[in-house]
Amino acid sequence: MAVIGYSFMGRAHSNAWRNVGAFYPDVPAVRMDTLVGRDEAALEAAAAELGWARTATDWREVVERNDIDVVDVCTPGHLHAEVALAALAAGKHVLVEKPLANTVADCERLVAAASAPGAGRSMLGHNYRRVPALALARDLIARGRIGDVRQVRLAYLQDWLADADAPMTWRLRKETAGSGVLGDLGSHAVDQLHFLLGEPVSAVRGELRTFVTERPGEDGDASGELEQVTVDDAAWATLHTPSGVVASLEVSRMATGRKNSLMIEVYGTTGSIRFDLERLNELEVCEVGEGPVQGPTRVLVTEADQPYAGAWWPPGHVLGWDSTFTSQAADLLRAIGTGEQIHPSFADGLAVQRVLEAIETSSARGGIPLDVAP
Amino acid sequence: MAVIGYSFMGRAHSNAWRNVGAFYPDVPAVRMDTLVGRDEAALEAAAAELGWARTATDWREVVERNDIDVVDVCTPGHLHAEVALAALAAGKHVLVEKPLANTVADCERLVAAASAPGAGRSMLGHNYRRVPALALARDLIARGRIGDVRQVRLAYLQDWLADADAPMTWRLRKETAGSGVLGDLGSHAVDQLHFLLGEPVSAVRGELRTFVTERPGEDGDASGELEQVTVDDAAWATLHTPSGVVASLEVSRMATGRKNSLMIEVYGTTGSIRFDLERLNELEVCEVGEGPVQGPTRVLVTEADQPYAGAWWPPGHVLGWDSTFTSQAADLLRAIGTGEQIHPSFADGLAVQRVLEAIETSSARGGIPLDVAP
Amino acid sequence: MAVIGYSFMGRAHSNAWRNVGAFYPDVPAVRMDTLVGRDEAALEAAAAELGWARTATDWREVVERNDIDVVDVCTPGHLHAEVALAALAAGKHVLVEKPLANTVADCERLVAAASAPGAGRSMLGHNYRRVPALALARDLIARGRIGDVRQVRLAYLQDWLADADAPMTWRLRKETAGSGVLGDLGSHAVDQLHFLLGEPVSAVRGELRTFVTERPGEDGDASGELEQVTVDDAAWATLHTPSGVVASLEVSRMATGRKNSLMIEVYGTTGSIRFDLERLNELEVCEVGEGPVQGPTRVLVTEADQPYAGAWWPPGHVLGWDSTFTSQAADLLRAIGTGEQIHPSFADGLAVQRVLEAIETSSARGGIPLDVAP
Amino acid sequence: MAVIGYSFMGRAHSNAWRNVGAFYPDVPAVRMDTLVGRDEAALEAAAAELGWARTATDWREVVERNDIDVVDVCTPGHLHAEVALAALAAGKHVLVEKPLANTVADCERLVAAASAPGAGRSMLGHNYRRVPALALARDLIARGRIGDVRQVRLAYLQDWLADADAPMTWRLRKETAGSGVLGDLGSHAVDQLHFLLGEPVSAVRGELRTFVTERPGEDGDASGELEQVTVDDAAWATLHTPSGVVASLEVSRMATGRKNSLMIEVYGTTGSIRFDLERLNELEVCEVGEGPVQGPTRVLVTEADQPYAGAWWPPGHVLGWDSTFTSQAADLLRAIGTGEQIHPSFADGLAVQRVLEAIETSSARGGIPLDVAP
Repeated sequence: MAVIGYSFMGRAHSNAWRNVGAFYPDVPAVRMDTLVGRDEAALEAAAAELGWARTATDWREVVERNDIDVVDVCTPGHLHAEVALAALAAGKHVLVEKPLANTVADCERLVAAASAPGAGRSMLGHNYRRVPALALARDLIARGRIGDVRQVRLAYLQDWLADADAPMTWRLRKETAGSGVLGDLGSHAVDQLHFLLGEPVSAVRGELRTFVTERPGEDGDASGELEQVTVDDAAWATLHTPSGVVASLEVSRMATGRKNSLMIEVYGTTGSIRFDLERLNELEVCEVGEGPVQGPTRVLVTEADQPYAGAWWPPGHVLGWDSTFTSQAADLLRAIGTGEQIHPSFADGLAVQRVLEAIETSSARGGIPLDVAP
Repeated sequence: MAVIGYSFMGRAHSNAWRNVGAFYPDVPAVRMDTLVGRDEAALEAAAAELGWARTATDWREVVERNDIDVVDVCTPGHLHAEVALAALAAGKHVLVEKPLANTVADCERLVAAASAPGAGRSMLGHNYRRVPALALARDLIARGRIGDVRQVRLAYLQDWLADADAPMTWRLRKETAGSGVLGDLGSHAVDQLHFLLGEPVSAVRGELRTFVTERPGEDGDASGELEQVTVDDAAWATLHTPSGVVASLEVSRMATGRKNSLMIEVYGTTGSIRFDLERLNELEVCEVGEGPVQGPTRVLVTEADQPYAGAWWPPGHVLGWDSTFTSQAADLLRAIGTGEQIHPSFADGLAVQRVLEAIETSSARGGIPLDVAP
Repeated sequence: MAVIGYSFMGRAHSNAWRNVGAFYPDVPAVRMDTLVGRDEAALEAAAAELGWARTATDWREVVERNDIDVVDVCTPGHLHAEVALAALAAGKHVLVEKPLANTVADCERLVAAASAPGAGRSMLGHNYRRVPALALARDLIARGRIGDVRQVRLAYLQDWLADADAPMTWRLRKETAGSGVLGDLGSHAVDQLHFLLGEPVSAVRGELRTFVTERPGEDGDASGELEQVTVDDAAWATLHTPSGVVASLEVSRMATGRKNSLMIEVYGTTGSIRFDLERLNELEVCEVGEGPVQGPTRVLVTEADQPYAGAWWPPGHVLGWDSTFTSQAADLLRAIGTGEQIHPSFADGLAVQRVLEAIETSSARGGIPLDVAP
Repeated sequence: MAVIGYSFMGRAHSNAWRNVGAFYPDVPAVRMDTLVGRDEAALEAAAAELGWARTATDWREVVERNDIDVVDVCTPGHLHAEVALAALAAGKHVLVEKPLANTVADCERLVAAASAPGAGRSMLGHNYRRVPALALARDLIARGRIGDVRQVRLAYLQDWLADADAPMTWRLRKETAGSGVLGDLGSHAVDQLHFLLGEPVSAVRGELRTFVTERPGEDGDASGELEQVTVDDAAWATLHTPSGVVASLEVSRMATGRKNSLMIEVYGTTGSIRFDLERLNELEVCEVGEGPVQGPTRVLVTEADQPYAGAWWPPGHVLGWDSTFTSQAADLLRAIGTGEQIHPSFADGLAVQRVLEAIETSSARGGIPLDVAP
């Protein structure tokens, strides 16, 4: 297999491929063949560190090689579509790190290609679907353990832009990033909503905000010249589903003191669930019952009868953030072996993108309610 | 003094008057003279339990008595205006349990009466302003300890209506309750926002929802006939202030597992604050600093140098919900002694009512943004 | 009734008598007649604040008055025995704040007097037995909800002596205090153990320590002369019961950052329980079951079907530390009405004192195991 | 390099060697050459899964091979000494998983061999020294951030033996396990104490207990015959250091509801620290200061300026239990590169073993205080 890209996500994915066989010996084995990048020196170093057999600088060549079966796309988002389309066209199995693509149009092309006859397995890298606690949450909801869901509270809060003097980055320019915090963090939250409920958002209202509208240059120099921030750094929305669920969404990179806090609360007719990514091994589950012992139960999700957890260590030995990529890789390899479709699919990514785009449009039109194309 | 009303709030207020002298010996003494109600037998029993010297069934007579200086209005909300106006007209000091009144028009009349020359002291009973942790939060924000506030997250979640078979009550009928969860719980959250920031909300977007639209009769009988629920049981809004703060608001009586959870998070440029009423003795304070020890500090607000706490017990001896009414009573009595105005004023109550009304209007118009009259 | 003493405990008890009728209208009514103390001016002020009808400076006279039925002893511990014996001899119902007395011998005399034919109701003021969460814990254990108890972890940690420059007080002199932190805080923990398990400690090992052995004079002056601290400021023990339970005990006034943290953990064969006094409205209950949802459940003990909680406010409206004295007063009054014995009895106080004395003796003898006299 | 052993610890160590280069590219590279075990089929499978180039069944041969520089001993504890001595004799760098050995005598021989002139680097695998939060705790203590330490509370609680019907295992037989929970879990706690304080325990009192003294046969069959449990399943101790610190220790495998809870609390004159392994990315730090904001600060230890954390992922991306082995491997490789000694040394392991043995001896003699040989 090959991974395209070797920065943050390329490293996280490489880590997964290096470890998947140790924790999931039942899935088809994979050989870490080629790491692809542009800067040859940095690429060589990364390949050596991460365990790749060789490197290449021309991704087109690599995705067409006969000895490559799986292509894992970890480039910046605006390149996802081009690389993944080429890989699919070449008959490869394809994993694309989220977002599927920066535009709905690109997402649609990818969905079409992925569902073409004879296409390989395709998967979108929403790694939080493989957090054991969240996979357990989905199981519990699906089995009716909290009744019919009514309300969901979604928030994804970070604070790395809270300092108004933090310099400009490509993530703060519309032309490179496409979207701000909504696309970056909001996409995780919306995908989780789809995952947990098993139904897509059908209508939204949204509101975007840029608290810090100008920042010093990328190199943080004291020239005094400020550059315009052209994406949102906070966003709010309400999301509606066909069955009547209402979810609130709040995302921010300005939430001082929150490092990586994806918080999910699901309220059903007979129970509720709470999760915070900063404590990813834990799930709070509340089920209404009889008698004086009622309340949220803190479940440490490291038991063999809980999703994914059994593949790792004994009970109470907690998992790290990176384990989610390894479990994701395992699920993809297993699907390649069986030929079954694996979630999240490219269609799941398109669904998320449509919701995000509707939120942005709603915001631009003063927060009016908008239907999301099915 | 006299209290009008002897059910839930009448009891909570009576408790305050009975205890205020023990914890706040420095404020003017008050005599618990008359408890006012309609059902004579129940009233007699309540007066004996709660420590009142006598009872009366005609509130008009009582508010005009020469030996009554303070009138405390704990009737249902739709009677607040009439009683409080009469008391003010009679030259009394007046405490009104929140909401000030069910309509903006009534609130305006009360504000006018309260600010008439020669009027007594007037106060609105938003008791959560006297939670030591929240009073401390306000002090910290006012002193700039978290920098300039950008984002606030407000939620007030309960679950006593989560069961769709829970029977009808007067609180679920528009004509008696005026509003649903927005007025009942949302008012607390909005008042806290005003209190903590020191500035009022100037624009809103809102969305109301009734998850359970029909319920069995009040007596829960099995006749099979269902009655229409005519108020909201959940609501969402975004609130904007003149200085640029954005607050999200979510209130619900359907949040299974949450009993009385008023959660407040305030994010500033250099720090943040978190509070949950279910742990009312605690405040989380995060201040950005240097070095490897960074994060939210859990402050147990029971120290002598923290607001109100010093009047009670030694450090670590936690306070109950009811203490907030006692501290509120103390502040009113002190203001009566000094002649100074005390917060929250009737004008503060009017400000809250305007925000709530704007949220309802916004919701009715599809969630459009609306300015709040200053 | 009369209360003897008007400082910290006298105030806490007065608060209870003033409020008991409002929350527990079913128990016999009580009239707050006489507050007893020595400093007349301070006493007058306290009586006015706390709600007493009159004052007296001679406790002997008061405990013999015909119009006094109940005597509540809130003096310093070394006077408990004398006052309580006189009150019992005069046929009064007697409440004694803990400790029952400073010596086992005094405790034994009190037990004998309390069990004499015709004696009134007697009760020891271990108020934490009326924390709703702990009363619920006892119920759950008694009903076998956590199986057979094996291990208990008890700790009571405060930090008001952590500063080595904090000045001397009477609590740090053996002759006035009798014991240090072991007697003061350890007594609460041992009484809870007896309460929760329903059986007394039968053998102990103990270890006492004085971390700060000299302190500046009581007035904190800079004369440079230091006084010897003659009691323990930290203690450790293991406690054994006849049924085979082992409890560890750790108490300290040097635990920087802990204000009033009585922590109790009870581990049974099929479940466990955790409590921290700093969050006195909460109880964590873990019951072993089937399936993937396992762990400690955080119970907010404010529901009507939980002990004491129903007498107060609606669910989710938390209680303060002072509520425990009010509920204690109610139980005593109810017992006076019915003539039934009420716990904790003087015999319960004697049992605690024997355990504490055995711990001290064990420590003095190098930590050897010692049986506790039954 | 070679690892001897491929079960639980062999897997955890293999995971470390496989990943160390990716997270610590600055340390000398290592080649995963040989995995050693006895059952050839299982060994082959493990080697393939874990990433080893080859396998061997004769550890003696392997430790003498010229192309092996590092030997990592993950056998059961009673074989540690023999393998490690042979490896040291052959001039290898040696990592030994804890315990260093089952007896003090064996530990002494290992210390002697490790300190012989010309010996390679040697290290003991107390992996919790590489938990970022605990390494940070040590730094803070060493820098005086909590003042002089007075009291420490250590507990390591699990519950996998709480069920009295759980069958026999080799861990419950004295002859194979050497010790019960004291050796298994207590060793971690004692090593942490040494690590955090920088001084060894000099005196102890101890108490051991076997709650379940008989268990069904290893295969859990219903033959009805029970086997004697010959090791402790719970233990308590107090530990004293030369500088006057007192630490309490409690370990158990019977603590229903606790999965892997190593809890450490350190109380100093001006601050305190708390840690729980079930939340290994967090450290609570309390520092006494001025003003109303005081209390424990929850530090999420994932920042670049905190120990080890910078080698992994961006802030807020939590680490798993397994990361500690990887960081441990990095420290060893770095020490091999520089030639410096690395902690924990074999002497550190000997120090722990002496403390454990003293606790056992104290317990056997009725809990008397015992000095620990320096």
